[in-house]
Amino acid sequence: MSSAAVPGVVVNGFIRSVRTMKKYTFVTLGDGSSLAPLQAVVPAAQIAETDGELTNGAAVRLEGAWTPSPGAGQSHELHVTGFAVLGPSDAKSFPIQKKYQTPEFLRTLPHLRPRIPFNTTLLRFRSDVVFSLNRFFEGRNFVQTHPPLITSSDCEGAGEVFTVVGGATPTKQDKEAGEGGFFRADKYLTVSTQLHLEALAQAVGNVWTLSPTFRAEESDTPRHLSEFYMLEAEVSFVDRMDGVMDLVEDMLRFVATENRGSRAYGELLAHTATANAESDLADPKTVEQRWTGLLSPERWPRITYAEALRLLQDAKVEFEYVPVWEQGLMTEHERYLARVVGGAEGTPVFVTHYPRVSKAFYMLPTDGSSGLSETVDCFDLLVPEFCEIAGGSMREYRLEQLLATMKARSMASSPGGLDWYVDLRRWGCPPHGGFGVGFDRLLCYLTGVQTIRDTVAFPRWYGRCDC
Amino acid sequence: MSSAAVPGVVVNGFIRSVRTMKKYTFVTLGDGSSLAPLQAVVPAAQIAETDGELTNGAAVRLEGAWTPSPGAGQSHELHVTGFAVLGPSDAKSFPIQKKYQTPEFLRTLPHLRPRIPFNTTLLRFRSDVVFSLNRFFEGRNFVQTHPPLITSSDCEGAGEVFTVVGGATPTKQDKEAGEGGFFRADKYLTVSTQLHLEALAQAVGNVWTLSPTFRAEESDTPRHLSEFYMLEAEVSFVDRMDGVMDLVEDMLRFVATENRGSRAYGELLAHTATANAESDLADPKTVEQRWTGLLSPERWPRITYAEALRLLQDAKVEFEYVPVWEQGLMTEHERYLARVVGGAEGTPVFVTHYPRVSKAFYMLPTDGSSGLSETVDCFDLLVPEFCEIAGGSMREYRLEQLLATMKARSMASSPGGLDWYVDLRRWGCPPHGGFGVGFDRLLCYLTGVQTIRDTVAFPRWYGRCDC
Repeated sequence: MSSAAVPGVVVNGFIRSVRTMKKYTFVTLGDGSSLAPLQAVVPAAQIAETDGELTNGAAVRLEGAWTPSPGAGQSHELHVTGFAVLGPSDAKSFPIQKKYQTPEFLRTLPHLRPRIPFNTTLLRFRSDVVFSLNRFFEGRNFVQTHPPLITSSDCEGAGEVFTVVGGATPTKQDKEAGEGGFFRADKYLTVSTQLHLEALAQAVGNVWTLSPTFRAEESDTPRHLSEFYMLEAEVSFVDRMDGVMDLVEDMLRFVATENRGSRAYGELLAHTATANAESDLADPKTVEQRWTGLLSPERWPRITYAEALRLLQDAKVEFEYVPVWEQGLMTEHERYLARVVGGAEGTPVFVTHYPRVSKAFYMLPTDGSSGLSETVDCFDLLVPEFCEIAGGSMREYRLEQLLATMKARSMASSPGGLDWYVDLRRWGCPPHGGFGVGFDRLLCYLTGVQTIRDTVAFPRWYGRCDC
Repeated sequence: MSSAAVPGVVVNGFIRSVRTMKKYTFVTLGDGSSLAPLQAVVPAAQIAETDGELTNGAAVRLEGAWTPSPGAGQSHELHVTGFAVLGPSDAKSFPIQKKYQTPEFLRTLPHLRPRIPFNTTLLRFRSDVVFSLNRFFEGRNFVQTHPPLITSSDCEGAGEVFTVVGGATPTKQDKEAGEGGFFRADKYLTVSTQLHLEALAQAVGNVWTLSPTFRAEESDTPRHLSEFYMLEAEVSFVDRMDGVMDLVEDMLRFVATENRGSRAYGELLAHTATANAESDLADPKTVEQRWTGLLSPERWPRITYAEALRLLQDAKVEFEYVPVWEQGLMTEHERYLARVVGGAEGTPVFVTHYPRVSKAFYMLPTDGSSGLSETVDCFDLLVPEFCEIAGGSMREYRLEQLLATMKARSMASSPGGLDWYVDLRRWGCPPHGGFGVGFDRLLCYLTGVQTIRDTVAFPRWYGRCDC
């Protein structure tokens, strides 16, 4: 590295701050590539003879000499010999200010919020993680697929779906249509791509997708959005659920390994360490601990739901809800298990074989030979504080057993309904299983951002769909 | 390569055909990894002592010796010493048959169609292209983003949008709601992610996405679907549209270069060459020509719309529609231009600077200094026979000019409407531009599949949304 100035350097970017002194104006500039800004020094004479104002938020092109800096804040600075204001900014009205602004206020400005350096870094980090997932699955010959978003399944009438209606101003008739609508029947936005992934897996073996999914839940929590990305994978010819859990474990370890050294991750951590206490970010030690847990060289612990219940019942802890077989695990229980079983390292913990009664119809009963099994071959992956971060199961691949379960649950296999899903079992359905990870939640876990509304650029939830 | 048999080989897959002779049964097996099947030879005695039937479509696990084959069709075959039928198949009722089945019939079975070896290969090819796009943009430091799908823009009331309604059985009130709906206002499925990409580009510089988009067009053509993937990118601080066209050209050339040697591409081409004349596939020479055009080492020709019109007017060809300035290019015109300007190599052709009156409000007038410009800085990329395969433009980045254009077109900038998009120009909007490629159409072009309904696994169009 030379300590001499390099002339003729051109930089494009957005002005983050302006400080005007007598002879010079000091400008800090960001271009989205790093959390730290570039410092530029503009002579007063230069400003006098150039059109356009150097104001907060302005898009500018600076030319000058890249020079070792005497200041403490940076190794180099740009000594500007010419500049152009390419996109002026009315700094007085610019809603994004350097002072602290509440997350809730910033959420009202999703079109401007990405310009905040931390949010910009979140965008880069998301991109990095997506690319590392591509590499992981490519390396294992998984086929990346695009399952449909408009589907026929209404999630068994659970009412948590969005209905899709053709036209911007559909007539009453259109809306009540059924037979008369755009698709000649009611159609919905998908709540999970799993059923379609199973069909594709029967063709190409192993598949994955990172796909939008939707829930019309009228909830108002930091963990739920109406529109979010799900990472889902389906594996064919897998006999034991351990194979699916191995895949989840390998994938998350790969993502953590690939991204731990990334610029985006380093910057997120550095920012978290200096952030305002009100900033709604997890403690940096907590975030580092999470990554250490994911990178733990040992295989992550796997315990059954029955073992988990025993641990909870033996715990010297007062739970608000007493753990009971049929009722599944409450958040307080999951927290306890992650802490006690995952240990000081914060290793993720698989809890397997939940009671059948509380789980989806397509899950494979644990005792394959009997319809009386009390549990199903399924798992949740629990991580400290955050609780469930992934879930998966083996799927019922046998025709008679699937039909029996559906009948017992009063679910119809009907044309235009789930007939096609049942069909998959009629002609060559091998044992298979898969998993899903809420991608935006995973980003929360990895970055320390406490709410999914802030890892998604344009979040949608009950009553809120800005821009 | 040894010519000796390798014992103890285990293969999972789906039976494509069964031929029973006196001493042996010959089974061909596919597992999704290749178009060509594996041949297995099962001794009659083995079949007699094993449960389960070797039938078309069945999912099986075979174990045996991988042995040089005396047959003409394959170098090796599996001499089976043991097998298990993991997923039986009722071959008599299996709707997918070896004999010719019309594309229209197969479209009624989207859950089974991917198992047809050619369709399986299409899935692998899609996955390969997606991964190569990831590598291309990663190499250029573009940030991959997830713009929202549920949006506020109704496409200026063009009526070609889907409206999103909360709940599976919304009440009349919900559906007519406006203020009372799930999001407290009418919301729609996005028709293009461009506007949101522009906001993100102002934060991180250069962005891209491969995102679902939706159109409620009541059309019934091989080029249109109601749900499809759009590849869109937006570039900040780009002064000249040539920069955007360079990006499109580099990207498509990269994709062609990376995939030309792929197994999926080779198999698609081999299949096309031997396919049934009724198979609805382009001629293999045509497909190879397309790739040669994309790989042309010269820069692709760029002509203005005005030059294109002159070429058409001077052409010694009888067009059904006489080319006229205001009316844009008809398909027959685009075909002629691609052929004549692209030449024998089939090089793609950029046509630029279309009449402003026919183009979207956000496009930058060609003569930046005046509001009176007759054309806008935009382009279409034309390829032989197929016509438009990509389109892009520079965006109006200046506040006053954008507002003037919107006013002239009677478009309101209003809260909950396009106010946010206008806002982007208030605070630091540099010159920028971008493009979009219909991803499923691109796959048609690259594979020779004639209709987008067959490159998409679960296609949705007017009146059709199966599974």
